[in-house]
Amino acid sequence: MFKGIAASRGIGIGSVCVIVEHDLKFEAKKIEDIQAEKERFNKAVEEFITETTAQAEDIRKKIGPKEAEILEGHIVMISDPSMAGEMTKMIDSGQCAESAVEAVCDMFIGMFSKMDDDMMRQRASDISDVKISMLKILLGIKDIDISKVAPGTVLVAKDLTPSMTSQINKENVVGILTEVGGKTSHSAILARALEIPAVLSVPDITKLVKDKDTAIVDGTEGNVYINPEGDVLSQYILKREEFIKKQSELKGFLGKETKTLDGDTVELFCNIGTPKDAKKAIECDGEGIGLFRSEFLFMDNNHMPTEDEQFAAYKEATEIMGGKPVIIRTLDIGGDKDIPYLNMKKEENPFLGYRAVRYCLGNKDSYMIQLRAIVRASAFGKVKIMIPLVTCVDELRAVKELVEEIKKDFDEQGIAYDKDIEVGCMIETPAASLIADILAKEADFFSIGTNDLTQYTMSVDRGNADVAYLYSTFQPSVLRSIKNIIECGRKAGIPVGMCGEAAADPMLIPLLISFGLTEFSVNPVLVLTARCVISKWSKEEADKLAEKVMALDNEKEIVALLKESAKE
Amino acid sequence: MFKGIAASRGIGIGSVCVIVEHDLKFEAKKIEDIQAEKERFNKAVEEFITETTAQAEDIRKKIGPKEAEILEGHIVMISDPSMAGEMTKMIDSGQCAESAVEAVCDMFIGMFSKMDDDMMRQRASDISDVKISMLKILLGIKDIDISKVAPGTVLVAKDLTPSMTSQINKENVVGILTEVGGKTSHSAILARALEIPAVLSVPDITKLVKDKDTAIVDGTEGNVYINPEGDVLSQYILKREEFIKKQSELKGFLGKETKTLDGDTVELFCNIGTPKDAKKAIECDGEGIGLFRSEFLFMDNNHMPTEDEQFAAYKEATEIMGGKPVIIRTLDIGGDKDIPYLNMKKEENPFLGYRAVRYCLGNKDSYMIQLRAIVRASAFGKVKIMIPLVTCVDELRAVKELVEEIKKDFDEQGIAYDKDIEVGCMIETPAASLIADILAKEADFFSIGTNDLTQYTMSVDRGNADVAYLYSTFQPSVLRSIKNIIECGRKAGIPVGMCGEAAADPMLIPLLISFGLTEFSVNPVLVLTARCVISKWSKEEADKLAEKVMALDNEKEIVALLKESAKE
Repeated sequence: MFKGIAASRGIGIGSVCVIVEHDLKFEAKKIEDIQAEKERFNKAVEEFITETTAQAEDIRKKIGPKEAEILEGHIVMISDPSMAGEMTKMIDSGQCAESAVEAVCDMFIGMFSKMDDDMMRQRASDISDVKISMLKILLGIKDIDISKVAPGTVLVAKDLTPSMTSQINKENVVGILTEVGGKTSHSAILARALEIPAVLSVPDITKLVKDKDTAIVDGTEGNVYINPEGDVLSQYILKREEFIKKQSELKGFLGKETKTLDGDTVELFCNIGTPKDAKKAIECDGEGIGLFRSEFLFMDNNHMPTEDEQFAAYKEATEIMGGKPVIIRTLDIGGDKDIPYLNMKKEENPFLGYRAVRYCLGNKDSYMIQLRAIVRASAFGKVKIMIPLVTCVDELRAVKELVEEIKKDFDEQGIAYDKDIEVGCMIETPAASLIADILAKEADFFSIGTNDLTQYTMSVDRGNADVAYLYSTFQPSVLRSIKNIIECGRKAGIPVGMCGEAAADPMLIPLLISFGLTEFSVNPVLVLTARCVISKWSKEEADKLAEKVMALDNEKEIVALLKESAKE
Repeated sequence: MFKGIAASRGIGIGSVCVIVEHDLKFEAKKIEDIQAEKERFNKAVEEFITETTAQAEDIRKKIGPKEAEILEGHIVMISDPSMAGEMTKMIDSGQCAESAVEAVCDMFIGMFSKMDDDMMRQRASDISDVKISMLKILLGIKDIDISKVAPGTVLVAKDLTPSMTSQINKENVVGILTEVGGKTSHSAILARALEIPAVLSVPDITKLVKDKDTAIVDGTEGNVYINPEGDVLSQYILKREEFIKKQSELKGFLGKETKTLDGDTVELFCNIGTPKDAKKAIECDGEGIGLFRSEFLFMDNNHMPTEDEQFAAYKEATEIMGGKPVIIRTLDIGGDKDIPYLNMKKEENPFLGYRAVRYCLGNKDSYMIQLRAIVRASAFGKVKIMIPLVTCVDELRAVKELVEEIKKDFDEQGIAYDKDIEVGCMIETPAASLIADILAKEADFFSIGTNDLTQYTMSVDRGNADVAYLYSTFQPSVLRSIKNIIECGRKAGIPVGMCGEAAADPMLIPLLISFGLTEFSVNPVLVLTARCVISKWSKEEADKLAEKVMALDNEKEIVALLKESAKE
């Protein structure tokens, strides 16, 4: 058994086909006929563009526009004067085209890969793809035609270039194994888009297998078996069937309402960080945005985003959601989230410090900019404002006053906005939970943040491994707090959501149904899973389980009972 | 108006008598007759011892044995071979006695005053006193006889030596002002023991006043007025009367039971850090120890105290308390308390980290040493074990199991202990408050730690000035939590105490009476104040106030109402 990065869920069992790395070595020659070499280079660029355009078109049809954009990006790169121009200059100085391509690409790869930013590192990997493709064209090397592999093939390669991936035929390829690449690499994205199980970064896998070996690719756990024994194989054949059955069951929930077994409807929203993620929420059939983490707008920036910049982002997400609710959480910084240009103080206990609404209300000028941007965006859909880290009713009142001030100003200036824009509270501190009845009188909605609520209730830093054994949403204290919050919301007649990770946990969902949660907000990829789990519980059955759980006095027994009772 | 350090409470109004600093300069002479000089020195030492012994005896009678020990310490010092011996050696080498005394004392003063330890710095100040007394004797300078000052005198001096203080006559001296000294200096200790208002460290005060000036010494606030205007004077005359009235009222509570207005008895215990503090608790008429902070044993040490060292300390405190309850809190380190030799990890959020019972249960060997020492001490009085920072019932169970293990071992070995030794929980986390009913079934008592409870409930670092505006025990959430804890304890029939600072707060006391707190644990100096406040509230009146308070939804209104209703 080998371990790698679980990059695309599912189980693939098949016959290995190792994609041999072409040797792209060449002899660097001094060029006499510079004009001819330049023509050879230009022809290669043309061929690259033609090939890549065709591949992008292929991918667009087979997979989708977003994935095709990766390859279209490669065309933009090679056409960029800073790249092609540099290469031409080198040829002018007498170097051969291969040398020019390699040297210029390597320079850019070196530059980008050093940057401490995922997007930049991805750029380095794109340029590497361009380099390989260009060298193959110049050296006259033809890639193996992956589209022709036999049905039931497990592809094994050092890495998959997008051009290879474009040839993958979903009907023939049952699994992918590579030596490089992580969860966010193109190989991973494309494998997921094609729904082919993939395990990446398996060390030396191209050397450990040979053609015709039998391979099991467990893309859910990141496990790889080569020529497994009979019992392992039969076990995985069963697992594979279950997975496929589960996937097809989940697909049956696409486009459906989210209902409990007895037909009570709840809302199933998504947690997002950028307007782009809103597209994903729609693709995954989310019914709204339960948590738009606005701080990413601030963190992926070198200056405080202006009102217009923020407005553009909120409006974009709102329009993508087309009238579905978009709950925007106002700036939640401090704690473990720092924004360098805000020059925040270093604190002894940042999680107990000047963060979230405390920071916002203490910096009213910049908070007003954000609130104005959100209120403006409310003209374009169903926008709601959510306040993080509330601990007393004064904070809610202060924010509502600021919103009223903005509304008045907008009325005077004739700026459009939703007059019924709602203002709600995150309930994620013990204080807020203890006064949930007070807050419920003045908040338009609640959203429970389970991560922070657990952290503060248990007085445990969620990032501290030494006390991780205490950090559990299934501690009786935390469950009681959640139950109380939902009851207070219900009594006041306001919706109560949950936007922590726990909202998608099959072990917690029956309790949330019993307590009366009205909105579940989850990672987009978990929408169908959550909808499926919710559909399997009746209120009565959930109540029975909840009653048993709430009678237990310790986390261990609670977890055991919920695990045993969970429905997937 | 001048400001200084408020060192002894109360208000003194009187006529200034400036104690002139004697000029202790001398000419360093080369000595011919060394034997005669040595005799002169020895005679001076004898005279010093006689004088100091008489002064100590005076102080013992007028003030008490603890204060007399300071002067007796001076006799030990001058008799110490390392001091007298060094001085004699210098005289042997031809130096005069004055030079020898000055040089040797200055050497020790320099050595001790550099040490980063209050006790060592105090030693430096003691040696300075010895030096001054010895030089006066050698130079034939007689101190002004303070015992002869007129009634109504405010003494003003650079510093008060213990020998001066011994002459102070409480009937004549109404206030003390000095240029040096802090709250823990001998002058302060003696002034407090004599109940004379004192303000210390008033810059240049000996130069700012002259004899016969009128001075107001506000030893409560640290304010000093010289020749005040009429309205200030009349105001302070009233304040002084009130203070005296209050003090005599408080003294009326000495030796009394602690009862509400309708006669319900509650317990009034003390918070202490060392066995010595237990004496203070007895002097202040505390009815037990509600919190013995055992971590001081560990912090004032360069190694983990052994079982015998700990046992000795716990036994000493227990015996001092003579059968009154002594609640020992097991090691509460981490958070803001570090112990260098334990090499604890630096944490991102130490208050949410590996601290208190988490550390104890994770280091069972050293925890067992502490628990064994406590259980052994239980043979000598009424000792109870208190667990800090409980968040789940498993922690209480784990500690109780360890105690049972120790009992079994002691039974086998025939080691004496109290078979009924109680094990209780600090309730100071939101988690513990939320499951107080569960904990109450298995804990023998509760003690509410208001500082941490407020900190965690409000998710506010109590040391962080930027969020201090949220840190208040009067937040509705915190009050509800306190009320719930007390109710859970009451329903289970176990005593519930409070050992945070809040237990002595006249604004909080009526609420605690209404909620049903059974034990108040306060700083020893606040015992009578708390007993007095408690005596002024009937349950019915407290209930009425509590009902009004708990109906308010914000801290500001709650504080205003409690301030208005407070009884001092």
